[in-house]
Amino acid sequence: MSATSIRVLGVDPGLTRCGIGVVEGVAGSALRLIDVGVIVTAPSQPLEIRLLELEGELIEWIDKHKPDVIAVERVFSQHNVRTVMGTGQAAGVTLLLAAKRQIPVIMHTPSEVKAAVTGNGRANKSQVAQMVVRILQLAEAPKPVDSTDALALAICNIWRGRASNNIAVALAKEKARISGLVKR
Amino acid sequence: MSATSIRVLGVDPGLTRCGIGVVEGVAGSALRLIDVGVIVTAPSQPLEIRLLELEGELIEWIDKHKPDVIAVERVFSQHNVRTVMGTGQAAGVTLLLAAKRQIPVIMHTPSEVKAAVTGNGRANKSQVAQMVVRILQLAEAPKPVDSTDALALAICNIWRGRASNNIAVALAKEKARISGLVKR
Repeated sequence: MSATSIRVLGVDPGLTRCGIGVVEGVAGSALRLIDVGVIVTAPSQPLEIRLLELEGELIEWIDKHKPDVIAVERVFSQHNVRTVMGTGQAAGVTLLLAAKRQIPVIMHTPSEVKAAVTGNGRANKSQVAQMVVRILQLAEAPKPVDSTDALALAICNIWRGRASNNIAVALAKEKARISGLVKR
Repeated sequence: MSATSIRVLGVDPGLTRCGIGVVEGVAGSALRLIDVGVIVTAPSQPLEIRLLELEGELIEWIDKHKPDVIAVERVFSQHNVRTVMGTGQAAGVTLLLAAKRQIPVIMHTPSEVKAAVTGNGRANKSQVAQMVVRILQLAEAPKPVDSTDALALAICNIWRGRASNNIAVALAKEKARISGLVKR
Protein backbone atom coordinates (compact mmCIF):
# COMPACT_ATOMS: atom_id res chain seq x y z
CA MET A 1 0.00 0.00 0.00
CA SER A 2 1.55 3.28 -1.13
CA ALA A 3 1.58 6.37 1.04
CA THR A 4 -1.21 8.00 -0.95
CA SER A 5 -3.42 4.94 -1.10
CA ILE A 6 -6.86 5.50 0.36
CA ARG A 7 -9.48 3.17 1.81
CA VAL A 8 -13.06 4.15 0.99
CA LEU A 9 -16.28 2.78 2.49
CA GLY A 10 -19.06 3.22 -0.08
CA VAL A 11 -22.63 3.31 1.21
CA ASP A 12 -25.70 3.08 -1.02
CA PRO A 13 -28.22 4.07 1.64
CA GLY A 14 -31.43 2.13 2.08
CA LEU A 15 -33.60 0.95 4.91
CA THR A 16 -34.56 -2.50 3.63
CA ARG A 17 -31.26 -3.12 1.84
CA CYS A 18 -28.26 -0.85 2.33
CA GLY A 19 -25.37 -1.66 -0.04
CA ILE A 20 -21.91 -1.37 1.45
CA GLY A 21 -18.43 -1.91 0.01
CA VAL A 22 -14.82 -1.16 0.85
CA VAL A 23 -12.24 -0.41 -1.85
CA GLU A 24 -8.60 0.54 -1.40
CA GLY A 25 -6.16 2.12 -3.80
CA VAL A 26 -5.04 5.27 -5.51
CA ALA A 27 -6.16 6.90 -8.76
CA GLY A 28 -4.02 5.61 -11.64
CA SER A 29 -3.20 2.24 -10.05
CA ALA A 30 -5.15 -0.97 -9.65
CA LEU A 31 -7.83 -0.82 -6.98
CA ARG A 32 -8.46 -3.60 -4.49
CA LEU A 33 -11.78 -4.94 -3.19
CA ILE A 34 -11.55 -5.25 0.58
CA ASP A 35 -15.10 -6.26 1.51
CA VAL A 36 -18.62 -6.02 0.20
CA GLY A 37 -22.09 -6.73 1.56
CA VAL A 38 -25.62 -5.58 2.21
CA ILE A 39 -27.12 -4.48 5.51
CA VAL A 40 -30.68 -5.74 5.76
CA THR A 41 -33.31 -4.63 8.27
CA ALA A 42 -36.76 -6.18 8.60
CA PRO A 43 -39.77 -4.08 7.54
CA SER A 44 -41.69 -5.80 10.35
CA GLN A 45 -39.56 -4.01 12.96
CA PRO A 46 -40.38 -0.50 14.24
CA LEU A 47 -38.64 2.15 12.12
CA GLU A 48 -36.46 3.45 14.94
CA ILE A 49 -35.24 -0.08 15.72
CA ARG A 50 -34.33 -0.61 12.05
CA LEU A 51 -32.28 2.60 12.10
CA LEU A 52 -30.57 1.45 15.29
CA GLU A 53 -29.75 -1.90 13.68
CA LEU A 54 -28.43 -0.14 10.57
CA GLU A 55 -26.20 2.09 12.71
CA GLY A 56 -24.94 -0.93 14.65
CA GLU A 57 -23.93 -2.71 11.43
CA LEU A 58 -22.31 0.43 10.02
CA ILE A 59 -20.30 0.77 13.23
CA GLU A 60 -19.06 -2.80 12.79
CA TRP A 61 -17.98 -2.09 9.20
CA ILE A 62 -16.19 1.08 10.24
CA ASP A 63 -14.46 -0.58 13.21
CA LYS A 64 -13.38 -3.53 11.07
CA HIS A 65 -12.14 -1.64 8.01
CA LYS A 66 -11.18 1.77 9.40
CA PRO A 67 -11.97 3.70 6.19
CA ASP A 68 -10.23 7.01 5.42
CA VAL A 69 -13.36 8.30 3.73
CA ILE A 70 -17.04 7.39 3.61
CA ALA A 71 -18.71 7.90 0.21
CA VAL A 72 -22.50 8.13 0.28
CA GLU A 73 -24.90 8.24 -2.64
CA ARG A 74 -26.68 11.56 -2.90
CA VAL A 75 -30.23 10.94 -4.07
CA PHE A 76 -31.96 13.84 -5.80
CA SER A 77 -35.14 12.39 -7.20
CA GLN A 78 -37.02 9.16 -7.06
CA HIS A 79 -40.57 8.22 -7.92
CA ASN A 80 -41.58 6.36 -4.80
CA VAL A 81 -41.75 8.86 -1.95
CA ARG A 82 -41.92 6.09 0.64
CA THR A 83 -38.59 4.80 -0.63
CA VAL A 84 -37.15 8.32 -0.62
CA MET A 85 -38.00 8.68 3.08
CA GLY A 86 -36.29 5.38 3.93
CA THR A 87 -33.28 6.37 1.83
CA GLY A 88 -33.15 9.76 3.53
CA GLN A 89 -33.38 8.25 7.01
CA ALA A 90 -30.66 5.68 6.24
CA ALA A 91 -28.47 8.39 4.69
CA GLY A 92 -29.03 10.59 7.74
CA VAL A 93 -27.88 7.83 10.09
CA THR A 94 -24.79 7.18 7.92
CA LEU A 95 -23.82 10.86 7.70
CA LEU A 96 -24.33 11.44 11.42
CA LEU A 97 -22.16 8.43 12.24
CA ALA A 98 -19.40 9.63 9.89
CA ALA A 99 -19.47 13.06 11.54
CA LYS A 100 -19.27 11.54 15.02
CA ARG A 101 -16.35 9.33 14.01
CA GLN A 102 -14.70 12.34 12.35
CA ILE A 103 -14.39 10.40 9.11
CA PRO A 104 -14.67 12.69 6.07
CA VAL A 105 -17.84 11.98 4.15
CA ILE A 106 -18.25 12.79 0.47
CA MET A 107 -21.51 12.49 -1.44
CA HIS A 108 -21.71 11.57 -5.12
CA THR A 109 -24.78 11.59 -7.32
CA PRO A 110 -25.68 8.40 -9.22
CA SER A 111 -24.77 10.05 -12.53
CA GLU A 112 -21.35 11.12 -11.22
CA VAL A 113 -20.72 7.54 -10.15
CA LYS A 114 -21.89 6.07 -13.47
CA ALA A 115 -19.81 8.58 -15.43
CA ALA A 116 -16.71 7.89 -13.33
CA VAL A 117 -16.99 4.11 -13.61
CA THR A 118 -18.35 3.59 -17.15
CA GLY A 119 -17.72 6.92 -18.89
CA ASN A 120 -21.48 7.31 -19.31
CA GLY A 121 -23.62 9.14 -16.76
CA ARG A 122 -26.69 7.25 -17.95
CA ALA A 123 -25.23 3.74 -17.85
CA ASN A 124 -27.55 0.99 -16.61
CA LYS A 125 -27.03 -1.28 -13.58
CA SER A 126 -25.56 -4.11 -15.65
CA GLN A 127 -23.00 -1.83 -17.34
CA VAL A 128 -21.94 -0.45 -13.97
CA ALA A 129 -21.63 -3.99 -12.57
CA GLN A 130 -19.50 -5.10 -15.54
CA MET A 131 -17.11 -2.20 -15.07
CA VAL A 132 -16.87 -2.76 -11.32
CA VAL A 133 -15.84 -6.38 -12.03
CA ARG A 134 -13.13 -5.22 -14.47
CA ILE A 135 -11.84 -2.38 -12.33
CA LEU A 136 -11.52 -4.56 -9.23
CA GLN A 137 -10.29 -7.54 -11.29
CA LEU A 138 -12.95 -9.84 -9.86
CA ALA A 139 -13.67 -13.33 -11.15
CA GLU A 140 -17.40 -12.64 -11.11
CA ALA A 141 -19.95 -9.94 -10.25
CA PRO A 142 -19.92 -9.06 -6.56
CA LYS A 143 -22.72 -10.59 -4.53
CA PRO A 144 -25.24 -9.52 -3.52
CA VAL A 145 -25.90 -7.41 -6.62
CA ASP A 146 -27.24 -4.57 -4.45
CA SER A 147 -23.72 -3.95 -3.28
CA THR A 148 -22.39 -3.09 -6.76
CA ASP A 149 -23.48 0.53 -6.45
CA ALA A 150 -21.64 0.84 -3.14
CA LEU A 151 -18.43 -0.42 -4.78
CA ALA A 152 -18.93 1.91 -7.75
CA LEU A 153 -19.33 4.79 -5.26
CA ALA A 154 -16.06 3.89 -3.57
CA ILE A 155 -14.28 3.61 -6.93
CA CYS A 156 -15.69 6.97 -8.04
CA ASN A 157 -14.46 8.54 -4.83
CA ILE A 158 -10.90 7.25 -5.31
CA TRP A 159 -10.78 8.25 -8.97
CA ARG A 160 -12.07 11.76 -8.54
CA GLY A 161 -8.76 13.44 -7.82
CA ARG A 162 -10.27 16.65 -6.57
CA ALA A 163 -12.36 14.93 -3.96
CA SER A 164 -9.37 12.95 -2.70
CA ASN A 165 -7.18 16.01 -2.65
CA ASN A 166 -9.71 17.91 -0.63
CA ILE A 167 -9.95 15.21 1.98
CA ALA A 168 -7.10 16.41 4.15
CA VAL A 169 -8.55 19.91 4.17
CA ALA A 170 -12.09 18.72 4.83
CA LEU A 171 -10.87 16.42 7.56
CA ALA A 172 -9.02 19.17 9.36
CA LYS A 173 -11.98 21.55 9.08
CA GLU A 174 -14.46 19.00 10.27
CA LYS A 175 -12.33 17.90 13.17
CA ALA A 176 -12.15 21.48 14.36
CA ARG A 177 -15.88 21.95 13.94
CA ILE A 178 -16.87 18.63 15.40
CA SER A 179 -14.65 18.85 18.47
CA GLY A 180 -17.06 21.34 19.99
CA LEU A 181 -20.17 19.59 18.76
CA VAL A 182 -20.11 15.91 19.60
CA LYS A 183 -22.24 15.46 22.70
CA ARG A 184 -21.75 11.70 22.96
CA MET B 1 -49.69 16.38 37.50
CA SER B 2 -51.89 13.27 37.73
CA ALA B 3 -50.48 9.79 37.65
CA THR B 4 -51.57 9.25 34.05
CA SER B 5 -50.31 12.60 32.80
CA ILE B 6 -47.81 12.29 30.00
CA ARG B 7 -45.10 14.61 28.66
CA VAL B 8 -44.70 14.53 24.89
CA LEU B 9 -41.90 16.02 22.79
CA GLY B 10 -43.28 16.75 19.31
CA VAL B 11 -40.81 16.97 16.44
CA ASP B 12 -41.68 18.30 12.99
CA PRO B 13 -38.49 17.13 11.30
CA GLY B 14 -36.57 19.42 8.98
CA LEU B 15 -32.97 20.21 8.21
CA THR B 16 -33.18 23.97 7.81
CA ARG B 17 -35.92 24.45 10.40
CA CYS B 18 -36.98 21.64 12.73
CA GLY B 19 -40.07 22.50 14.80
CA ILE B 20 -40.04 21.23 18.37
CA GLY B 21 -42.53 21.50 21.23
CA VAL B 22 -43.24 19.93 24.61
CA VAL B 23 -46.79 19.45 25.91
CA GLU B 24 -47.90 17.77 29.12
CA GLY B 25 -51.27 16.45 30.19
CA VAL B 26 -53.80 13.69 29.86
CA ALA B 27 -56.63 13.17 27.38
CA GLY B 28 -59.81 14.75 28.74
CA SER B 29 -58.09 17.40 30.87
CA ALA B 30 -56.42 20.71 30.04
CA LEU B 31 -53.03 20.36 28.41
CA ARG B 32 -50.03 22.46 29.34
CA LEU B 33 -47.39 23.98 27.05
CA ILE B 34 -43.97 23.30 28.56
CA ASP B 35 -41.64 24.64 25.88
CA VAL B 36 -41.58 25.37 22.17
CA GLY B 37 -38.94 26.33 19.61
CA VAL B 38 -37.24 25.68 16.31
CA ILE B 39 -33.87 24.06 15.71
CA VAL B 40 -32.10 25.82 12.87
CA THR B 41 -29.03 24.59 10.98
CA ALA B 42 -27.21 26.61 8.34
CA PRO B 43 -27.42 25.41 4.71
CA SER B 44 -23.84 26.68 4.28
CA GLN B 45 -22.57 23.94 6.60
CA PRO B 46 -21.72 20.40 5.37
CA LEU B 47 -24.74 18.14 5.59
CA GLU B 48 -23.21 15.79 8.17
CA ILE B 49 -22.34 18.72 10.43
CA ARG B 50 -25.91 20.00 10.22
CA LEU B 51 -27.20 16.58 11.29
CA LEU B 52 -24.71 16.54 14.15
CA GLU B 53 -25.90 19.99 15.26
CA LEU B 54 -29.53 18.88 15.02
CA GLU B 55 -28.80 15.83 17.16
CA GLY B 56 -26.96 17.97 19.71
CA GLU B 57 -29.95 20.30 20.07
CA LEU B 58 -32.39 17.39 20.29
CA ILE B 59 -30.27 15.89 23.06
CA GLU B 60 -30.49 19.18 24.97
CA TRP B 61 -34.29 19.24 24.62
CA ILE B 62 -34.57 15.63 25.78
CA ASP B 63 -32.21 16.13 28.71
CA LYS B 64 -34.03 19.29 29.78
CA HIS B 65 -37.62 18.07 29.45
CA LYS B 66 -37.31 14.29 29.89
CA PRO B 67 -40.29 13.43 27.66
CA ASP B 68 -42.21 10.17 28.17
CA VAL B 69 -42.82 9.91 24.43
CA ILE B 70 -41.41 11.48 21.27
CA ALA B 71 -43.97 12.15 18.53
CA VAL B 72 -42.55 12.59 15.03
CA GLU B 73 -44.35 13.66 11.89
CA ARG B 74 -44.50 10.89 9.31
CA VAL B 75 -44.16 12.43 5.86
CA PHE B 76 -45.60 10.45 2.97
CA SER B 77 -45.48 12.78 0.02
CA GLN B 78 -44.06 16.12 -0.85
CA HIS B 79 -43.39 17.87 -4.12
CA ASN B 80 -39.84 19.02 -3.57
CA VAL B 81 -37.63 15.93 -3.43
CA ARG B 82 -34.71 17.94 -2.06
CA THR B 83 -36.86 18.88 0.93
CA VAL B 84 -37.99 15.28 1.33
CA MET B 85 -34.38 14.14 1.63
CA GLY B 86 -33.65 16.75 4.32
CA THR B 87 -36.84 15.81 6.14
CA GLY B 88 -35.94 12.12 5.93
CA GLN B 89 -32.42 12.72 7.21
CA ALA B 90 -33.68 14.87 10.10
CA ALA B 91 -36.38 12.29 10.93
CA GLY B 92 -33.77 9.51 10.82
CA VAL B 93 -31.57 11.34 13.32
CA THR B 94 -34.57 11.96 15.62
CA LEU B 95 -35.79 8.35 15.49
CA LEU B 96 -32.30 6.94 16.07
CA LEU B 97 -31.82 9.20 19.09
CA ALA B 98 -35.20 8.17 20.55
CA ALA B 99 -34.28 4.50 20.12
CA LYS B 100 -30.91 5.02 21.82
CA ARG B 101 -32.52 6.86 24.71
CA GLN B 102 -35.19 4.12 24.92
CA ILE B 103 -37.91 6.74 24.67
CA PRO B 104 -41.00 5.39 22.86
CA VAL B 105 -41.43 7.11 19.53
CA ILE B 106 -44.77 7.37 17.77
CA MET B 107 -45.26 8.71 14.26
CA HIS B 108 -48.39 10.56 13.15
CA THR B 109 -49.28 11.64 9.63
CA PRO B 110 -50.09 15.33 9.03
CA SER B 111 -53.76 14.45 8.38
CA GLU B 112 -54.01 12.46 11.64
CA VAL B 113 -52.64 15.49 13.47
CA LYS B 114 -54.97 17.93 11.73
CA ALA B 115 -57.97 15.69 12.36
CA ALA B 116 -57.09 15.26 16.04
CA VAL B 117 -56.56 18.98 16.66
CA THR B 118 -59.20 20.60 14.42
CA GLY B 119 -61.59 17.76 13.59
CA ASN B 120 -60.67 18.18 9.92
CA GLY B 121 -57.87 16.17 8.31
CA ARG B 122 -57.50 18.83 5.62
CA ALA B 123 -57.31 21.89 7.89
CA ASN B 124 -54.85 24.60 6.88
CA LYS B 125 -51.88 25.90 8.88
CA SER B 126 -53.82 28.85 10.30
CA GLN B 127 -56.71 26.65 11.50
CA VAL B 128 -54.26 24.29 13.20
CA ALA B 129 -52.48 27.25 14.83
CA GLN B 130 -55.78 28.68 16.13
CA MET B 131 -56.75 25.38 17.71
CA VAL B 132 -53.30 24.91 19.26
CA VAL B 133 -53.70 28.35 20.89
CA ARG B 134 -57.12 27.39 22.29
CA ILE B 135 -56.16 23.91 23.43
CA LEU B 136 -53.06 25.13 25.26
CA GLN B 137 -54.88 28.28 26.50
CA LEU B 138 -52.17 30.54 25.11
CA ALA B 139 -52.46 34.34 24.96
CA GLU B 140 -51.18 34.32 21.35
CA ALA B 141 -49.94 31.99 18.63
CA PRO B 142 -46.74 30.20 19.60
CA LYS B 143 -43.60 31.65 18.07
CA PRO B 144 -41.92 30.81 15.83
CA VAL B 145 -44.89 29.72 13.70
CA ASP B 146 -42.89 26.71 12.43
CA SER B 147 -43.25 25.19 15.87
CA THR B 148 -47.06 25.04 15.77
CA ASP B 149 -47.02 21.72 13.93
CA ALA B 150 -44.74 20.25 16.59
CA LEU B 151 -47.19 21.29 19.32
CA ALA B 152 -50.11 19.90 17.31
CA LEU B 153 -48.21 16.61 17.01
CA ALA B 154 -47.71 16.46 20.76
CA ILE B 155 -51.39 17.26 21.41
CA CYS B 156 -52.48 14.61 18.89
CA ASN B 157 -50.29 12.08 20.65
CA ILE B 158 -51.79 12.80 24.07
CA TRP B 159 -55.34 12.76 22.76
CA ARG B 160 -55.12 9.55 20.81
CA GLY B 161 -55.94 7.18 23.65
CA ARG B 162 -54.85 4.06 21.88
CA ALA B 163 -51.39 5.39 21.21
CA SER B 164 -50.95 6.44 24.83
CA ASN B 165 -52.27 3.13 26.11
CA ASN B 166 -49.84 1.24 23.96
CA ILE B 167 -46.88 3.17 25.23
CA ALA B 168 -46.16 1.01 28.23
CA VAL B 169 -46.21 -2.09 26.05
CA ALA B 170 -44.10 -0.50 23.31
CA LEU B 171 -41.63 0.79 25.86
CA ALA B 172 -41.16 -2.60 27.42
CA LYS B 173 -40.77 -4.29 24.05
CA GLU B 174 -38.33 -1.73 22.77
CA LYS B 175 -36.25 -1.77 25.92
CA ALA B 176 -35.86 -5.52 25.56
CA ARG B 177 -34.95 -5.20 21.91
CA ILE B 178 -32.67 -2.25 22.32
CA SER B 179 -30.74 -3.61 25.28
CA GLY B 180 -28.93 -5.97 22.94
CA LEU B 181 -28.55 -3.45 20.14
CA VAL B 182 -27.17 -0.17 21.40
CA LYS B 183 -23.47 -0.13 20.56
CA ARG B 184 -22.77 3.29 22.04
